[in-house]
Formats: sequence, structure tokens, C-alpha cells
Amino acid sequence: MESGDAARPGSGRATGAPPPRLLLLPLLPLLLGRGLRVAAAASASSSGAAAEDSSAMEELATEKEAEESHRQDSVSLLTFILLLTLTILTIWLFKHRRVRFLHETGLAMIYGLIVGVILRYGTPATSGRDKSLSCTQEDRAFSTLLVNVSGKFFEYTLKGEISPGKINSVEQNDMLRKVTFDPEVFFNILLPPIIFHAGYSLKKRHFFRNLGSILAYAFLGTAVSCFIIGNLMYGVVKLMKIMGQLSDKFYYTDCLFFGAIISATDPVTVLAIFNELHADVDLYALLFGESVLNDAVAIVLSSSIVAYQPAGLNTHAFDAAAFFKSVGIFLGIFSGSFTMGAVTGVVTALVTKFTKLHCFPLLETALFFLMSWSTFLLAEACGFTGVVAVLFCGITQAHYTYNNLSVESRSRTKQLFEVLHFLAENFIFSYMGLALFTFQKHVFSPIFIIGAFVAIFLGRAAHIYPLSFFLNLGRRHKIGWNFQHMMMFSGLRGAMAFALAIRDTASYARQMMFTTTLLIVFFTVWIIGGGTTPMLSWLNIRVGVDPDQDPPPNNDSFQVLQGDGPDSARGNRTKQESAWIFRLWYSFDHNYLKPILTHSGPPLTTTLPAWCGLLARCLTSPQVYDNQEPLREEDSDFILTEGDLTLTYGDSTVTANGSSSSHTASTSLEGSRRTKSSSEEVLERDLGMGDQKVSSRGTRLVFPLEDNA
Amino acid sequence: MESGDAARPGSGRATGAPPPRLLLLPLLPLLLGRGLRVAAAASASSSGAAAEDSSAMEELATEKEAEESHRQDSVSLLTFILLLTLTILTIWLFKHRRVRFLHETGLAMIYGLIVGVILRYGTPATSGRDKSLSCTQEDRAFSTLLVNVSGKFFEYTLKGEISPGKINSVEQNDMLRKVTFDPEVFFNILLPPIIFHAGYSLKKRHFFRNLGSILAYAFLGTAVSCFIIGNLMYGVVKLMKIMGQLSDKFYYTDCLFFGAIISATDPVTVLAIFNELHADVDLYALLFGESVLNDAVAIVLSSSIVAYQPAGLNTHAFDAAAFFKSVGIFLGIFSGSFTMGAVTGVVTALVTKFTKLHCFPLLETALFFLMSWSTFLLAEACGFTGVVAVLFCGITQAHYTYNNLSVESRSRTKQLFEVLHFLAENFIFSYMGLALFTFQKHVFSPIFIIGAFVAIFLGRAAHIYPLSFFLNLGRRHKIGWNFQHMMMFSGLRGAMAFALAIRDTASYARQMMFTTTLLIVFFTVWIIGGGTTPMLSWLNIRVGVDPDQDPPPNNDSFQVLQGDGPDSARGNRTKQESAWIFRLWYSFDHNYLKPILTHSGPPLTTTLPAWCGLLARCLTSPQVYDNQEPLREEDSDFILTEGDLTLTYGDSTVTANGSSSSHTASTSLEGSRRTKSSSEEVLERDLGMGDQKVSSRGTRLVFPLEDNA
Repeated sequence: MESGDAARPGSGRATGAPPPRLLLLPLLPLLLGRGLRVAAAASASSSGAAAEDSSAMEELATEKEAEESHRQDSVSLLTFILLLTLTILTIWLFKHRRVRFLHETGLAMIYGLIVGVILRYGTPATSGRDKSLSCTQEDRAFSTLLVNVSGKFFEYTLKGEISPGKINSVEQNDMLRKVTFDPEVFFNILLPPIIFHAGYSLKKRHFFRNLGSILAYAFLGTAVSCFIIGNLMYGVVKLMKIMGQLSDKFYYTDCLFFGAIISATDPVTVLAIFNELHADVDLYALLFGESVLNDAVAIVLSSSIVAYQPAGLNTHAFDAAAFFKSVGIFLGIFSGSFTMGAVTGVVTALVTKFTKLHCFPLLETALFFLMSWSTFLLAEACGFTGVVAVLFCGITQAHYTYNNLSVESRSRTKQLFEVLHFLAENFIFSYMGLALFTFQKHVFSPIFIIGAFVAIFLGRAAHIYPLSFFLNLGRRHKIGWNFQHMMMFSGLRGAMAFALAIRDTASYARQMMFTTTLLIVFFTVWIIGGGTTPMLSWLNIRVGVDPDQDPPPNNDSFQVLQGDGPDSARGNRTKQESAWIFRLWYSFDHNYLKPILTHSGPPLTTTLPAWCGLLARCLTSPQVYDNQEPLREEDSDFILTEGDLTLTYGDSTVTANGSSSSHTASTSLEGSRRTKSSSEEVLERDLGMGDQKVSSRGTRLVFPLEDNA
Repeated sequence: MESGDAARPGSGRATGAPPPRLLLLPLLPLLLGRGLRVAAAASASSSGAAAEDSSAMEELATEKEAEESHRQDSVSLLTFILLLTLTILTIWLFKHRRVRFLHETGLAMIYGLIVGVILRYGTPATSGRDKSLSCTQEDRAFSTLLVNVSGKFFEYTLKGEISPGKINSVEQNDMLRKVTFDPEVFFNILLPPIIFHAGYSLKKRHFFRNLGSILAYAFLGTAVSCFIIGNLMYGVVKLMKIMGQLSDKFYYTDCLFFGAIISATDPVTVLAIFNELHADVDLYALLFGESVLNDAVAIVLSSSIVAYQPAGLNTHAFDAAAFFKSVGIFLGIFSGSFTMGAVTGVVTALVTKFTKLHCFPLLETALFFLMSWSTFLLAEACGFTGVVAVLFCGITQAHYTYNNLSVESRSRTKQLFEVLHFLAENFIFSYMGLALFTFQKHVFSPIFIIGAFVAIFLGRAAHIYPLSFFLNLGRRHKIGWNFQHMMMFSGLRGAMAFALAIRDTASYARQMMFTTTLLIVFFTVWIIGGGTTPMLSWLNIRVGVDPDQDPPPNNDSFQVLQGDGPDSARGNRTKQESAWIFRLWYSFDHNYLKPILTHSGPPLTTTLPAWCGLLARCLTSPQVYDNQEPLREEDSDFILTEGDLTLTYGDSTVTANGSSSSHTASTSLEGSRRTKSSSEEVLERDLGMGDQKVSSRGTRLVFPLEDNA
């Protein structure tokens, strides 16, 4: 007798609530439920013929029960659909009347709350499951059980462990159970489209322009925030223990885990308002980029913390080996997922480039969808994180594949993922509202909750302000105080924190975290979401900027004239190293990747060395020779923001720190050499434009107050 | 100890294979699987902290197993995605090179077959499940089982009954099991988008013009076909019994069930070629309309046959009460599902009309999607058939809601459902290819298979030719012999027959049916699909007709001149009753439903009686007053095909049979009175046009040979 292969035996969980598997899975049975009923009917009929002597009445009763259960499944999903429908109609009303104090996600939560209250207090509490407590096994739980019932064999699968205290007390309301989804639905069905859409709809120009800062906020910032929140919460937990408020175990790793999941910001409300008001594009890029990468970091961080298992029995002391293993796991999962996403993106780009699939937008869209989905599966099959892979796949698809698609497919894919994202996001938020009342295992601890609010505030502050300070040392156009305050303010928590928290609510600590996360999401989405518009005007942040367009030249030239002195002075401190790296990447991308993967860019025959001639001719698409004029894609300029400046301003402005100035010289030299050798006009045109824009933009960021006042 | 609420205890099935529930469900675990692993890791970690003394090694082993299983899940879905990707690329190649002998669905099956062979013979046969046969219960199987394992309680759920002979012989290949989906996935996830798309993309003009014939083919035809095939197969089964080829029971109801599921035609291949070659639109409408309604009829028919359970123990004799009950069930389910679909369609139309949602295409599309999906759930919740409801919802949405949508939402919704339909259809077909080798319980019976091929041929012939004969008695423009042959030829079986067959493969009879259905689908899709183009030219069926446009007038006026005599002579025999009914419906639709549900049509204030003035003003949208000019929607004309002719030709041509002639007079009178009273120009313009076109089209159908030669 060995253990089974598929089910996960409820691994020796100490005490507390049933494992997450016990949360029923009504979405899928519901989808499958109709058949259950008909199949039951069918089998009843076919078997009714065969086994005339069997008790037909009993079967009928069972059939009726199955039918009833199926009906409830349908009703529970209908509830969600009605919730979403109601949300959509109310959103429309709000948009129609230009109400901005409540975002659709906040609204979805409110409706969810209301329905949750109705379900909780309005429906009769039926005793849900009938159990038969009968067998006793030796020493292990098996994943599959065969039971001999008067000669017939029935197969059972393990659902999970049940704590002995709960066996008879599982007073359950059928409807409440039905509306409780398996937590993995969130992680494997609802999050991927949201995350993919985030990657795919990234405004690349602004994203890449601020890439350094975004990466710093996302990686360093999340780590700092996680660590600070974790430690503060450990203090709170200690305090609770002293006050006797803690009824079960709560370890340091649990606190760190909480820090990780709650560090995933999701300023969906703020970004929606930014979008609507056309607020400053750089701030938008910083916030959006941070939140997107943030999510990926938080997922991987939380699983690394979970994987932190010190050797030996003293499991919660610090163990350097285990710590470095966790760091290794973090790096491994992250880079693996990144690679997976990038690789499928590149493969899709190659396929769409070398086939004439764009004549058939339906095929193209289907292929795009399948390839993007396969990223998720591929990453999962290799043991990486599908959600993270999907993010980078989205970015790659947007950067390369998008350019190969037909015009129709571009809008099709955008719209497809937009709808999926919209539905998934609003579903999660309305589920959150519902869960506050229907989730059966809440642990409300006022001290923990207050502590958590303080901790996330401090954690966010300790992440935004110091990082911004250090980034400003290196940035040409500084992140102003008002931007920093706005970023501080925009630390909403949303779908990702919720999905990570609901994933495992088995232990007491996890349940407390879940409840707290839920409340934090509510509070931040409602209060912060509602306060965004006042905050924007209070902080004097520009609105009314066309996000795809740079500001009109007259406005900016005025600023440039005004700001030229201090701006170029600040420009001196630009970290040339990072500029050099970005420049290298841009050149590589522009000269090799773009021509290989898309129909744009300079012909490879000119960029590759002569001995690669044949290969270059094969890989270069004929279109490239036709339209040798500089590529006018939205994402091609601006990636070399800081590099440009070096080339043009370099000689006159690089004065402050000698080390980087010498670097600059070599860089600019190298840059111009490469430019000359490969695709002169293209790069030069790009540079000229980028240059002009950047300098003006840099100025705009320096004088936001004058501008807005 | 009572039975549980959700699971279906394996109702006393006599012998044979395990019930369908035993087919694993890897799609969903896969989607959920990642979490399973991480949750396992998480719980292992958190519990590892709590229960340090528990055997950590064992947990680790379990975790690894779960991880391995999850990986296999991902790989199996990846297999399907690769299959689909390959199919898409090959389709592109075929379309690119204008290869028409193999349709994408046929291709998907071939690739599926190849992968099936590889999986079957290329992967090692591992012994899949490890079982623990330990407990003995008293007299019933319970849906939930609590097992006490040395003090810990584990919960198990019932999967189904296992036949005693199979307990130890379930030699199973992991990979084969993984690629075997739960049959209900087909019915509840893959079919609805296919069917909805069919309804939504119905070319209404041609559909409604031939509605009478389509309904006759779909309802009468399917019933006839089901009955004939069922009886023929019963003969075959008798023969097999005599020859000793039958190793288990096979009842008459089983034969009828087979007749029902195999009567669902799915000429997807033929229709695709028709579309591509722009073949005759009326033939297209007949085939498409028949196959769409066909599916609905076949589903409901098969569940009615399943519900046919004679009272008493002699279960397979004819029982009039049970028969009428079955008929009642058929009518009940059908009309209920129809109503559900129509009601949600109407609600969506009202919502999209009375809100200004069309300013926000994303919201509109999401609402449309949700409302259409809710049809499925609503029907299921009420005990009707979701798939059928979704079909009529699609038709209603296309007829009313579509007109209220913004231009962007129109293309968005069309494209969304097009992609879903494309993916679902190709998935089903590639799964079919795979299933031929990976499905574990095939029962190949040459006699049954040959018998089935003969039976479906005869069943189709007995349905097309006699029905066409009777329809031609009443039709103005006859269904010519070449059309009849083409319809006879186009009796492909596809996704619906497969989904119905795989739904229950528990008994020996059902397994034999499943295998036979699979082979029939293969044969018909490949052979008939490949033969469509030759057949079209052999039968002299017009190609190159623009489906949205009527043929150029010069061409047709020539025909009208030629064919006027015999055509109008035949026109005499037009059944005026059906024309009258359609006319009534058209008037009602045009004067009341369209103005209420859409922004088009005459203002209600003119069509409703005066005392409804207030209501009429509320319901009529302001746009209607603005654009009082006749509505030029694609679907508004032509529904009153036969009515028109009466109005214009009536007096001079109605000579042959007096009874219908007198009817004609009254109808035309009534028609013109209503026309005058309500919306003169609109109807009259419509009539004038419809008239001209119809007469010419009627002629075209009469002289297809001259036309094409």
C-alpha cells in the first residue's frame, strides 16, 4: 500500500482549520455539474435496465440531491454574474456622471459585501455535509481509497485532513459553501489574464525610460517593505503574546510571509484615475511599472519564504544555509520564469514574422492566445511561476510580436485581453467583498490589524523615500517630492495580495493574515481610491497630459529656457553606467533583436558582420529593405533617454564627477561609432528626437509647481 | 448516516467499466495544480513548523509526487496547445496554398491521431494508481467519508464505483490518463461557445427566409432520422446477438439513444467550403440552420430518451405513459430552454437600449458576455439545457441586442466569440483524434460499425428526400434535386455527436456507441469534407455568390424573364398559411419588438393604440424619431418573402388551388391594411425590394443548371 500519485495527502498539519482543499470548488463542479446530473440520469436509466433489483428509490433520491446541488452551483455563479452586471451598470452610471470618488473595483467590493451580508444572515443555515465516520486505517492517509460496500467497490479520493474538533461542528450553510471558491482558482485562472494584460498594455516608452527606477522600486523596494513589515509585525505578534491575545502559534517566517504578500501593491484605482485625467505620464509609468513588477517579486518572494526551511528541529531560528537557499530559490524562480516568458514571446514573434499568418487575423489571434497561455503551462511544467512568466511574456509580445500582427489582430488581441482582465479583476474584487461575510474562518484581531496598517504605512514610507533619494542621485529628471508623496499615497493593496493570502488559510496565523489583508484591501481601495483626485490637485501634479503624445513644444520650450541652467547642472550627476547599459541593450535590441524578430529595424545584412551574410539574408524580412526609412514605432524611441543626452550634451555638461565623465566620453564614442557603422540615419534621427523630448521632459518634471499653478 | 449532497454515488451499475467520473479531470487540476504544489509546500512548511515530530520525509515524498503530477498535467495541456498551434500553422499553409481537400477540423484530428499513437505506444506503461483496499461499509456508499488514521481525521469524497474485475487490472499509463478529460468539460465548457457563436453569427436574412424548411428538417428530420437509425441498429444488435458477437446487454432504448446522438449533424467542413467559395446562400442557410437546430433537438431528444423509464420491472417494453412522459419532457425542456435564451437576450437588449453603455465598449462587451453566459447558468439552474438556451440567446442577441451595440462592441463581441468558437472546435476535433488511441475502453465491433454507417446513410436519406418532397409542395422556390443531394451528402457528424457520446461511457453499449461515433466522425469529416468541392461542381451548385448581397440584377432579370412562367405557376401552390404566420410575426417584430428592444423601427407612438401613449413614449428611443427613414438593417427585409409575393402577384397568379387562394386574398388584405395603418413607407419599401429579389431568387433556384453550365 503506497500513497497515490495525484492527490495531496493532508500533510501532517498540526491543528486548526481544515486545509485549503476543503474549501469547496464550486466553479468547476458547476461547469461540470449539468453533466453530473444528466450522466446520473443516464446511468440511472442504463443501470436501471441492468440492475432492476437494485433499490431504484434510493437512486432517485441521490439523483435529486445531485440535481439540487447542481442547481445551487448554478445559482451561486449566477450571483456573481449578477454582481458583475450590477457593477458594470453602476460603473457606467458613474462614468456617465463623471463620479470619480469610487472606482469600479471599490464598487464591486461594496456590492459583494451587500450580497455577502444577505447570504450570511438571510439564508437559513442548513447542515451541509452528512458524514459517515466509519473506517480506521493503520498509520497513513492514502490518496485513493477503495471501499467495499456489500460487494460493490467504490473509489474515494482524499480531500484533506479535518481537525477533530471540527468534525461535528461544521455547521455549514449550503449557499455559503457554494460561493466559496477554491483559492487556486484565483491564482491559476483569474490572475494570469490580469497580469498578462498588464504586461501587454505597458506603455513601453515611458516604462523603459524609467526602467532603472522601476526595477529599484520593485526589487529593492519590495524586499525592504517585506522585511520592515515582517519585523514590525513580529513585534506586534510578540506584543499580542504578552497580552494573551494570541491563541495559536505565529512564527517569524509567518510574519515575513505576511510582509511579502502585503507588499504587492495594486494601485488599479489610482491608475484608472490617472488614465482618465491624463495625469503625468512619468508618474504613471513609475507607479504602473512598480506595481506590475512588484506583484511578480511578491509572488516569488513569498514562495521563497515558504521554502525557507532550516535544517534540524529548531525550525525557526535563523539559518544561513537555509537563507541563502531561499535567496537562491528566489533568483532561480525569478530568472527561470523570466526566461520562459521571454522565450515564448520570442517564439511567437518568430512564428508571426516568418508565416504570412497576418492574412488571417482569426488564426493569428488564436495563435497569439495559445502561445501566451502556453507560457503559463511551460513555466508550471518546469517548476517556475506561471504568473510571473506570463508577465514577461506579455512584455515581450508587446515589444516584438505586436509589430508583426495585422492591424486587426492588434486590436483583437488587445481587446480580448482587456475583456478578460476586466472580468477577472472585477470578479476578484466582488469576491473579496463577499468573502468578508461568507468566508468561514475569519480571525479578527484588532491589535494585529492596527499593527498591520501602521506597518504597511511605515514599510511603504521606508521604501519610497529613501529609494527615491538614492535614485535622485542618479536620475537626470528627479522624482520630485510631490511624486514621492503620490507614490507613498498610492500604496493600495489589491488582487495579488488577496490571492496570495487566500491561497493557504489552513493555520491560525494564515487565517489572521487573510482577514487582515482583506481589511487592508478594503480600506486602501475605498479611502485611497476616493482620495486620489483631491490628492492629485493638492500635490499639484499635472493632469490633462496626452499619454501618447509629448507636451506641445511651445509650452516646453518655455520650460527648457527657464530650466536649462539647473537642469543641465543636475544632468551632470546622471549615472553614466546605467545609461551605458541601457544604450548597449537598445543598440542590441534595435540592431539585432528587432530585425530578427520583427519586420522593422535596419536590415541584418548591414548590422551583422559580413561572414553572417547568408544567415542575415534569411532572417531579414523583405519588408525591411522596402521601408528603410526610420522605424516610427511608438516604442523605438526614448529607450536611450540618457544615452542620447550624453551624445549631444555630453561634452559641455559632464563636469561634476570626473570618473563618470570619462566613462561618458568612451560611451558616446562607442555609441557614435556603432551608429556610423550600422544604420546611420535611423539612429541619428532617433537620437535627435529623443534628445529634444527628453530634455524638455526632464525640465517639466523639475518645475511641476510652476506648471500646474 | 445519510448520503452526501454533492457527489453522485455510482448508482447500481451492473457490470463493465468504471463510471465516467473515473475518467480523470486533468484540465482543472492542471489549472489548479500549481497551487496544489505550492499550497502543499506552504502547508508543509507551516506544518513542518508545528509538527516537527511528524515524519518530514514522508511529506517530502508526497510533495514530490504532487509536483510530478502537476508537471504531467501541465505537459498534457501543453500537448494540446502544441497540437492546436500546429493545426493553426498548417491551416494557414493550406489557406495560403488554397488547399481545400482537408479542413482544419480534419487536420486537427490527424494531428491528434498522430500524438495519440505516440502517447499510446511511445510512452512507458506505468502502473498508475496505488490503491488501498481496506474498509468495508454496511450497505450504502456515502459521498463523503471520514477516515481515522491513528488519531487524525481525513476526508474522502466518492469518485464512483469500480467493477470488481478491474480493481487490480487497471494497468494505466500516467500520460494517457492525463490527456483524458472529464467528458463534461466538452458539454459545459467547449460546446457553449460553439453553439452561441452559431446562433450569433446566423445569417438571419437567409435563415428566416427558409425558416419553415429549416424547422421541418431540424425537428421532423431529426426525429425521423433518430427513429430510423435506432430501429436499424436494433436490427443490427439482434443480428449480433444471433451471431454471438455481443458480449453484454444492448437495449432498444440504447439503440434509440444512439439514433439521437448520431442524428446531430455538424457540416462544419462543408459550410467552411461554402463560405470560402461563396456557394449558394439558400443552400447554406438550409444546411447551417438545420445543423444548428439539429444539435439542440438531438441534445433534448437524447435526454428525453434517457428519461424514458417505463414503470414496473419489465423495463424495456413499450410503455405509452412513459413515452408520452418523454415527449412531454422533450417539449418542456425545449420550450423552457428556448424561453430562457430568448428572455436573457431580451433583457440584454433592453439594458443596452436604455443605458448609454455604448459609450464604453469595454463595459458593453463585458455585459454582453456576462448576460450570454448567465443564460447558460439560468437554464441549468432551472433544470433546462444550457447549451440549447445559449443557442436561442445567441439568435436573440443577434436580432435585437446587436443593433444597440456600439460599432466597436459589435466587432468586439463577434471577434470574441469567433476566437472562443475556433479554439473550442479545434480542441474538440484534436481531442477526438487523440481519443481514438488514448481512450481506454474502446469496443470495436465491425458489424455494429458497418451497420451504423448504413443506418446513418439510410436515416439521412429517409429524412432529406421525403421531407424535401413535402416541403417542395409548399415552397415557392423549390429545393432542387441537386440541393437535396448536397444536403444528403453533407450529413457530417462532429462535435455534438462526440460530446453526447462521450458523456456516458459506463456501459458496454455506450462504449460501443462511443467507438462507432468516433469512427463515423472521422470518416465523414475526412471523406465528405474532402469531397465537398468536387461534389459542388458535380451537382452544379452556384458558387461565387456574395452571401450578403443578392446577385446582380442583370443576371437575374434574364432569369426572371426566362423563368417567369413556370415559377409563378409553382408559386400558386405556396402554402399561404405559413406565409401568414411569418407575416404576422414579422409585423409584430417590426412594429412592436424592434421598437421596444432596439433603436430602430417605427416609433411605438404610431404603432401602439392611443391609450398606451405614455408607455409608448417611454419605450421609444429618441433616435427613432430622428431616423424615421426605413430601417436598413441586414435582417429586416426578406422575412416576409412569401407574404410579399402574395401582395403583388397574388391576384393574377393564384389560380391553381382555390382554398389557399381565398386565404391569400384575405391575407393580402390584412397585410395591406396593417401596412397602411402603421408604417407605410417602411413596409412598402421593404415589400417592393423583397418582392423583386425573391422572384428572381426563386427563378435562380429553378434553373440552376442553365445558370451554372
